[in-house]
Amino acid sequence: MNTIIRHISLILLGFAFASGPAPNAWAQSDPLPSWNEGAVKKAVTDFVASVTTQGSPDFVPVDQRIATFDNDGTLWCELPMYVQLAFMLDRVKALAPQYPDWKTKQPFQAVLADDMKALAASGEKGLMELMAATHAGMTSDEFAKIVSDWLATARHPRFNRPYTELVYQPMLELLAYLRANGFKTFIVSGGGIEFMRPWTERIFGVPPEQVVGSSIKTKFEMRDGKPVLFRLPQVNFIDDKAGKPIGINEHIGRRPIAAFGNSDGDLEMLQWTTLGASGARFGLIVHHTDAEREYAYDRHSHFGKLDVALDAAAVNKWTVVDMKKDWKRVFAFE
Amino acid sequence: MNTIIRHISLILLGFAFASGPAPNAWAQSDPLPSWNEGAVKKAVTDFVASVTTQGSPDFVPVDQRIATFDNDGTLWCELPMYVQLAFMLDRVKALAPQYPDWKTKQPFQAVLADDMKALAASGEKGLMELMAATHAGMTSDEFAKIVSDWLATARHPRFNRPYTELVYQPMLELLAYLRANGFKTFIVSGGGIEFMRPWTERIFGVPPEQVVGSSIKTKFEMRDGKPVLFRLPQVNFIDDKAGKPIGINEHIGRRPIAAFGNSDGDLEMLQWTTLGASGARFGLIVHHTDAEREYAYDRHSHFGKLDVALDAAAVNKWTVVDMKKDWKRVFAFE
Repeated sequence: MNTIIRHISLILLGFAFASGPAPNAWAQSDPLPSWNEGAVKKAVTDFVASVTTQGSPDFVPVDQRIATFDNDGTLWCELPMYVQLAFMLDRVKALAPQYPDWKTKQPFQAVLADDMKALAASGEKGLMELMAATHAGMTSDEFAKIVSDWLATARHPRFNRPYTELVYQPMLELLAYLRANGFKTFIVSGGGIEFMRPWTERIFGVPPEQVVGSSIKTKFEMRDGKPVLFRLPQVNFIDDKAGKPIGINEHIGRRPIAAFGNSDGDLEMLQWTTLGASGARFGLIVHHTDAEREYAYDRHSHFGKLDVALDAAAVNKWTVVDMKKDWKRVFAFE
Repeated sequence: MNTIIRHISLILLGFAFASGPAPNAWAQSDPLPSWNEGAVKKAVTDFVASVTTQGSPDFVPVDQRIATFDNDGTLWCELPMYVQLAFMLDRVKALAPQYPDWKTKQPFQAVLADDMKALAASGEKGLMELMAATHAGMTSDEFAKIVSDWLATARHPRFNRPYTELVYQPMLELLAYLRANGFKTFIVSGGGIEFMRPWTERIFGVPPEQVVGSSIKTKFEMRDGKPVLFRLPQVNFIDDKAGKPIGINEHIGRRPIAAFGNSDGDLEMLQWTTLGASGARFGLIVHHTDAEREYAYDRHSHFGKLDVALDAAAVNKWTVVDMKKDWKRVFAFE
């Protein structure tokens, strides 16, 4: 996959002369081999054809081909818990020796005892305390290294693989396919923007400047003549639900023409993308229906709840991926 | 200029086969014709050569070639006042018939009477009231149209031309030159992000998603089944001074390797870009020294004050453009 992404990047950067295959080489083979033939795959390729065909009434110039992707549950696995939550719990355990009082102090005690019930009881206030203890109090460069080091060793409890291997192969193909068709692909996630940026380029081909996410406040300081950004224990922005169109407007500054999500947290992003603007628009929801190869969940899930947005999909003619039926492969390692 | 930008864009987008000249055609002619020969021009071209030459110890891969530009006073004229301030004052006058009480209510009264002394006396509180009255209370789409309509008719008081013609020709060439060398160019301005985005792509070749600026808060709403972002009278972010590295980190997520400014508001951006990180870095300050063709101002100016950053330039070996000496032309219309 990395080779394909690199080749496409080279073409887009205009080095096609020197080292890449000619663009039409791509048109001849199936760009979405992990998608089963059917209405969903056809909806994707029909949309892309309609906005990229010169002379088509729905043609969209390259610079306006903006596509936004949710991350958790849309590009990678979000069960049995959000990856960033797993990171946070592991981080509490790693830091615990420095803070002996955590053994008897909630919500830390709950984390150290793997007591998820007590953790849940600590509510949003508890979560914010954990966030402050694990995500703040270091520079942005230091945090990036902490995240990278953790991802290098952490393993998914069910699949026993690095979390960065639990990315959906059909979605990787979709990202590359859109980019090969002149789209600029963005991640727009409720997850932490600085939690994602250290690895999104390598895993998804999405560079840091095309990642939108939740953030905490930072402070600029000179330390021994060197500038740093120090991470503060204060929420700056929550990029979820109605925050997603706000984050999109703040970071991208124009409306996407295609948006991809999987939960109620993506409802407003899909609305902002598809409703009330002229021209062709595409909204897609990944419905997790495959307990065997991944997980099956929707209206009653603690993570990635898909309820209102599933009803809205029917009303607004958003494409719904039935993971079990529409995806030939879920993960590359299958 | 627009033709050059379009050609370069096409090359970068990989359509060089079909319509653009071969990349090396550009290498043969001077990419910076409005810059006089000398140490400053040489510093620019030497830096670009060092980071783009394969095998050079300072070589930087394309995806890391991030360059950030201040706007007011760096890319376009900021005297006799910031363009956005001129917009705000004009907007108060345009709205005044709807608000009869403004005739006797500060700070509006001061604006309507062109009483700059009374306006200054209203301080930051007065400015915030004007900002709320002129920049909030409409959707983001509506605001973009208000800005575009104003720019189409407003004229600079001295040059009697649209503000969008008062952009520095040498800087337009520099933006295009950097992009032709694989740089991604960003604007990082204290000005309003939504004030700039309607025109930066057309004037500077910088698309909305590469504009970072100050912002007010917005609210997502569905109105008659259509989603809008409504602009609220609350400051969200001030992208000036220490805010610039914070804005850069938030929007771009990696350190620029080159930064261009003209005032003390750019000091921290230049520090963040050039100090304490490994590899070649380039900082440049435009020093306004040409009262005849533009304006001459620095340490004591009300707009674009250049004092601390001018001293820092000497210490940190940032390149300082002497506008009078280093620029063959200031504006394209000369």
